[in-house]
Amino acid sequence: MTIDQALLQALRPAARQAPPSGIVEMVNHGLERDGLIPLWAGEGDVPTPAFIREAAAASLAAGDTFYTYQRGIPPLRQALSDYMTRLYSEGFPFDPDRFYVTGSGMQAIQIAIACVAGPGTSVVLPTPAWPNFAAAVGLSGAEAIAVPMDHADGHWQLDIDALFNAVRDDTKAIFINSPGNPTGWTATEEELQQILSRARRAGLWIIADEIYGRFYYGQANDGFRADSFHDLAEPDDQILYVNTMSKNWAMTGWRIGWIEAPPILGDTIENLIQYSTSGVATFVQKGAVTALNAGDDFITEQVARAREGRDIVAQMLSTLPRVQSSPPDGAFYYFFAVDGVDDARQLGFDLIDQAGVGLAPGTAFGPGGERFMRLCFIRQARGLREAMARIHAMLG
Amino acid sequence: MTIDQALLQALRPAARQAPPSGIVEMVNHGLERDGLIPLWAGEGDVPTPAFIREAAAASLAAGDTFYTYQRGIPPLRQALSDYMTRLYSEGFPFDPDRFYVTGSGMQAIQIAIACVAGPGTSVVLPTPAWPNFAAAVGLSGAEAIAVPMDHADGHWQLDIDALFNAVRDDTKAIFINSPGNPTGWTATEEELQQILSRARRAGLWIIADEIYGRFYYGQANDGFRADSFHDLAEPDDQILYVNTMSKNWAMTGWRIGWIEAPPILGDTIENLIQYSTSGVATFVQKGAVTALNAGDDFITEQVARAREGRDIVAQMLSTLPRVQSSPPDGAFYYFFAVDGVDDARQLGFDLIDQAGVGLAPGTAFGPGGERFMRLCFIRQARGLREAMARIHAMLG
Repeated sequence: MTIDQALLQALRPAARQAPPSGIVEMVNHGLERDGLIPLWAGEGDVPTPAFIREAAAASLAAGDTFYTYQRGIPPLRQALSDYMTRLYSEGFPFDPDRFYVTGSGMQAIQIAIACVAGPGTSVVLPTPAWPNFAAAVGLSGAEAIAVPMDHADGHWQLDIDALFNAVRDDTKAIFINSPGNPTGWTATEEELQQILSRARRAGLWIIADEIYGRFYYGQANDGFRADSFHDLAEPDDQILYVNTMSKNWAMTGWRIGWIEAPPILGDTIENLIQYSTSGVATFVQKGAVTALNAGDDFITEQVARAREGRDIVAQMLSTLPRVQSSPPDGAFYYFFAVDGVDDARQLGFDLIDQAGVGLAPGTAFGPGGERFMRLCFIRQARGLREAMARIHAMLG
Repeated sequence: MTIDQALLQALRPAARQAPPSGIVEMVNHGLERDGLIPLWAGEGDVPTPAFIREAAAASLAAGDTFYTYQRGIPPLRQALSDYMTRLYSEGFPFDPDRFYVTGSGMQAIQIAIACVAGPGTSVVLPTPAWPNFAAAVGLSGAEAIAVPMDHADGHWQLDIDALFNAVRDDTKAIFINSPGNPTGWTATEEELQQILSRARRAGLWIIADEIYGRFYYGQANDGFRADSFHDLAEPDDQILYVNTMSKNWAMTGWRIGWIEAPPILGDTIENLIQYSTSGVATFVQKGAVTALNAGDDFITEQVARAREGRDIVAQMLSTLPRVQSSPPDGAFYYFFAVDGVDDARQLGFDLIDQAGVGLAPGTAFGPGGERFMRLCFIRQARGLREAMARIHAMLG
């Protein structure tokens, strides 16, 4: 055994065996390629609005460089409360004590998992799904149980009976991401009510990922937002909401998110933050305060950009006979299969090398997505049209 | 059972039972108190130097707000390599591929633990120690085995036989923090060599926390830095170095640190970063690049400030007959007991309420430290003298 092999063998198996991100693999392959149009990640091509960046810069200039509150600075917890109250005006009151600032939506997920699951337990999730959730469940020592969704005519559907049939005695939580990445599946209020009722009866936690709630193209709530557990749940339901500043405010690179949970869990969540990254930089939080308090117009722009991108992709894909797809109801991805292509990962490499477009292969998203490609359409129209023309030239 | 109690019961026991930080408890008690002089945390009263803050602000202005490399941006990994080469000129070459940027020193520790330990395993550490390490071990599912250090005449000493006698069959790693928080204990080269040799023979990982290596008041290395495993180890030894930008560059609030490890572990560490916070903001990393490349003079200032603070505290404590202490060899804390005081936590509250000075109670630091108080002395002289006068008035 070489020294390198011995070092790897000395690692904890669960760490050594954690699956590589199928998206990072594509990015590493194509990032430095001239002229590549990257549609692989869940972000657009518009930087964070200047007024948000300037708020963070002002905080830096003011010397906000010391340790701060583990749960988040009070103005940010208040701003989250205000934003959520505007968004879910018919929901319950949003006490600032319900909000805990985290160092990314990913960390919100990691901490939510650590709250409820660990070795000897399991978490059920519909797939295809963002791969980091199942990977984080696995690293926690718990088992992720995938429940493949149904796919027909380019639309994805969750079989709620199948979801709860997968629940075992050791299952602690179900993970519901609606609108969903990568599928665009968006639960109706009736579906959310069924899930909530059955989770309550089974004593299960719901980890609710509604980060794409504003990127919604349907008719509910006058199209302002997707339906939400907030419309149905009580403040003390066993729900851990995970969220992020990344998507609404184009702050993907900032690494700031939040957990919303019953205040009684505050000490536990504070400890989990303390023992993972010990809080978020004050100057980053002040940027987030400004985003929440003054960013509603920008969200409108973001959603309009996503909607236009969705139309562009829909139009171009409709001219490809080998592709069957329908416009998604929510989020900002097209997730489509190509007739005759079984190896999505290879197609991902080929699209980078031959078309100069980066997509994320469905192999990254768990059972049910293996043959699909994910394309992020929250991009400015010109670049997106160019990308679609290149894809058309290769697959047409 | 009330609804709140039922919610707590539904949490994972390891999460619910994670110990609260004894320091956060003090901060929450005293933070809003007028005129309080806070010496409880491991940070000074000087903000990050303007040239570092300006580098981050320039990056924000340039629109560096997108997702980036999970291992850290290449210029930062290069800057870390250059800095470490300057610091340990007689050590092995520091390949940039040895460095992984994390969202705090705390996250470096969390990820290092996740690399090597988990349920059914244990990690041995000398105490008193920074409490977050044992807490993070516990949350990982592993057991932290405390080995109390010896204390005599105000000095702390590690019994290396006792340390290795505590190693069990399920032990995967030992945690060595030198210079040590809170004790100031600083391993000699001979002690480091003993630890390294015995860890090698036992096949154990060393998690090496040398974040206070520049805050050293002894004679080795012409006083430029404390002795280090880097002086003795091979590049492919089973050592995970955890580090932070916080102390040397007064960047405590930025939440950025790093792991140094053999490059063969790169894929594993990248995955663990991806599935915890998915990287560090580019604009934060660019601040760190500037700190590393242009911050050596500031480190000299920081160390001089710590040295002067150490002298101030030493002089004042020497006039208190109830206090036995000696100046520490490293780090920037005095860790002292008060004759007749058995409840350090209560003394902590009393010092806040009656003297207007915040210290950290030794109860926070594990076995052996219960009767002690930790005082951070990296402060500007005037405020520190005032704090010591207040302590003297109360305890003298």
